[in-house]
Amino acid sequence: VGVKQEPRTKKQETNNYWAQQVFVVGTGMTRFGELWGESVESMAKAAVEEALGEAKISVADIDALIVGNMLLPMLENRAHVARVVADAIGYTGPALAVEAACASGGMAVQQGVMFIRSGMGRNVLVVGVEKMTDADGATIARGLMGAGGEEEQLAGATFPALYALMHQAYQHTYKIDDEAMAGIAVMSHCHAASNPLAQFQKGITVEAVLKSPLVADPIRLLHCSPVSDGASALILSAEKTRTKKQDTNIEIVGSGLGGDTLALSKRKSLTSMKATKQALRQAELMAQGKLGIADKVEVVELHDCFSVAGYIALEDLGFCGVGEASKCLSNKSMPLINPSGGLKACGHPVGATGVKQVVAVARELRKGKKWGLTQNVGGTGATAVVHVLRNTSHEVRGAKYEEGI
Amino acid sequence: VGVKQEPRTKKQETNNYWAQQVFVVGTGMTRFGELWGESVESMAKAAVEEALGEAKISVADIDALIVGNMLLPMLENRAHVARVVADAIGYTGPALAVEAACASGGMAVQQGVMFIRSGMGRNVLVVGVEKMTDADGATIARGLMGAGGEEEQLAGATFPALYALMHQAYQHTYKIDDEAMAGIAVMSHCHAASNPLAQFQKGITVEAVLKSPLVADPIRLLHCSPVSDGASALILSAEKTRTKKQDTNIEIVGSGLGGDTLALSKRKSLTSMKATKQALRQAELMAQGKLGIADKVEVVELHDCFSVAGYIALEDLGFCGVGEASKCLSNKSMPLINPSGGLKACGHPVGATGVKQVVAVARELRKGKKWGLTQNVGGTGATAVVHVLRNTSHEVRGAKYEEGI
Repeated sequence: VGVKQEPRTKKQETNNYWAQQVFVVGTGMTRFGELWGESVESMAKAAVEEALGEAKISVADIDALIVGNMLLPMLENRAHVARVVADAIGYTGPALAVEAACASGGMAVQQGVMFIRSGMGRNVLVVGVEKMTDADGATIARGLMGAGGEEEQLAGATFPALYALMHQAYQHTYKIDDEAMAGIAVMSHCHAASNPLAQFQKGITVEAVLKSPLVADPIRLLHCSPVSDGASALILSAEKTRTKKQDTNIEIVGSGLGGDTLALSKRKSLTSMKATKQALRQAELMAQGKLGIADKVEVVELHDCFSVAGYIALEDLGFCGVGEASKCLSNKSMPLINPSGGLKACGHPVGATGVKQVVAVARELRKGKKWGLTQNVGGTGATAVVHVLRNTSHEVRGAKYEEGI
Repeated sequence: VGVKQEPRTKKQETNNYWAQQVFVVGTGMTRFGELWGESVESMAKAAVEEALGEAKISVADIDALIVGNMLLPMLENRAHVARVVADAIGYTGPALAVEAACASGGMAVQQGVMFIRSGMGRNVLVVGVEKMTDADGATIARGLMGAGGEEEQLAGATFPALYALMHQAYQHTYKIDDEAMAGIAVMSHCHAASNPLAQFQKGITVEAVLKSPLVADPIRLLHCSPVSDGASALILSAEKTRTKKQDTNIEIVGSGLGGDTLALSKRKSLTSMKATKQALRQAELMAQGKLGIADKVEVVELHDCFSVAGYIALEDLGFCGVGEASKCLSNKSMPLINPSGGLKACGHPVGATGVKQVVAVARELRKGKKWGLTQNVGGTGATAVVHVLRNTSHEVRGAKYEEGI
């Protein structure tokens, strides 16, 4: 595939990308949950085998492996994380690991997209993996606290405590009652109930959320995503389809990355994430050359590590006005939100989550939807990654993408 | 800068890159050594400020920050490593951390190159940083062992022990005596003696190497790179020079990545690294469209974590025949080797090393040399990164790079 580039203009700023297409040709994931019999290696292998099977290629066809993982160095004193996965799948080619706390998976997807767009390779294997449930709760909490600001760590602020500040600020600023704050968790569990790969395959009620134990006031247990094991994998390719039988083309057409300070105390807002907005802007520009993609998006996987994060994401991504997410949740104008069950109910093996989001959206697009979006957050919003996916199966490419060979 | 791409052909395999140029417009590094008064933050800040000063840009001009680091999660239980550096320099834009054991720095440089080549941004800040000397020796050894195979870790094989196997195999296979094995350490110390940023600014003799304590037979203390603190930084840019005063253009024209199994026991050879050869091949093809670049290279920074690694690198990179490195070391046909003092004598703060190599070569090229090369290794050779640099100050670009705007 040879693709003519568009002329670059100064106005395009940081989005002077080459018009290279990136296709999702294989997806795989394990069940998420407490998988006591599984290891990082066994889970990664299972996810990769499924993705290779879908793509109808073998390990020998892979030009690079990119692994998203956060906790393996902390919990198991193991580094060279990409090669741990490489060994598990019998791959000896180029490999690297990327880390951005709970956004490690989304970051790995972005590096995969860049790998292809920069012409470094044709087929890239992206793997997200995390094994959390072998460690005790205090170790996990301490490990996750590593994703926050040092002053937050020293003050003993766990992630539920930090998100509790945002939850409080959000409720106070927009006058949202406790029942409304519970809505997104109920929705996520409802979706997870029909996802055989989800950690919690059962519905919950608003009442159950309100009666669940307080973890960090006002955050209750059922506002929180769980500690999980799991792996997910993607084959990204510069080539449209691997076989003629495969008749859906899913492309990653936008990839954006945003940042902010580690510590909440340094942020301008507790009810919005600058990082998400920055990542969205980049992804929108890359996907369509202009801002404003929310109206097109039919399915979104967003980072609902806590209920308040889900609501803030919906607003930052432009799906509804500020303070309106809880009211708009079931509006017909909204996209399908977290069909996998989200972090809340599908589970949140941190490095795996960002890759799983793309897997989940790609699988929804294969059913016929056209535009999808993922949003993955690190820490309390110090990092955000947004991807825009598009089903281009039945499109005739215009002048923008003139295909060569 | 708008650049016409070359047509892609099947023969180019994984090197169907877009013809985007990547300039090194700023370099910075701290002194390497036992810097007890410094932290990851303070060292990163110092290196970045120097690089920004050279590039004559500010933090606001940076489109992405890429950090190479291995040990912060293990030694200080801190994750979200890129944002730790970002906070230290007052940067809130996109940032990610990459990890590939002792090749984390080189990997970060490659991600920076890809970032620009994929058009994701114009100015990328690449930082390598490591703070090692605060931890006790056993903790450091255990941390570094995380870069090897799990069976090697469980067997208690430290890195000197693993490289001792390679040292033995190399001496035995090519009949190299102990005096010859000491040569590269003597050379590195000689260069470090005139580098004010080096950890050990003094020469050593062959006799001193042979009389130094055995660490892991036959590796002696003076065959080993030290435990170090330090940071290094690069500004990579899609734009040639930032100011008219700056009249040297240093480009990264080739970037290659290679891999192999984590464990030595699974490798085909103990006296050569497949990962280095694979990385070199990619970098050569990208740099010049064909293999064989050794004859052009006038300066090389290679990964001499132990003496044997330096010799193997010289051979794998094509600077001399197999088994001949110790004899060829001072041949006139050889490039300048490790002008910084290499890992052995400049020091080896692991995440910083791969970035420092590019800093050191770029600074040599500014003095008038034309071609330079870096080689950075992770573990015992499970990862290798090779970069080719070129001084293009006085070249008229041909049809290959037709410059636009």
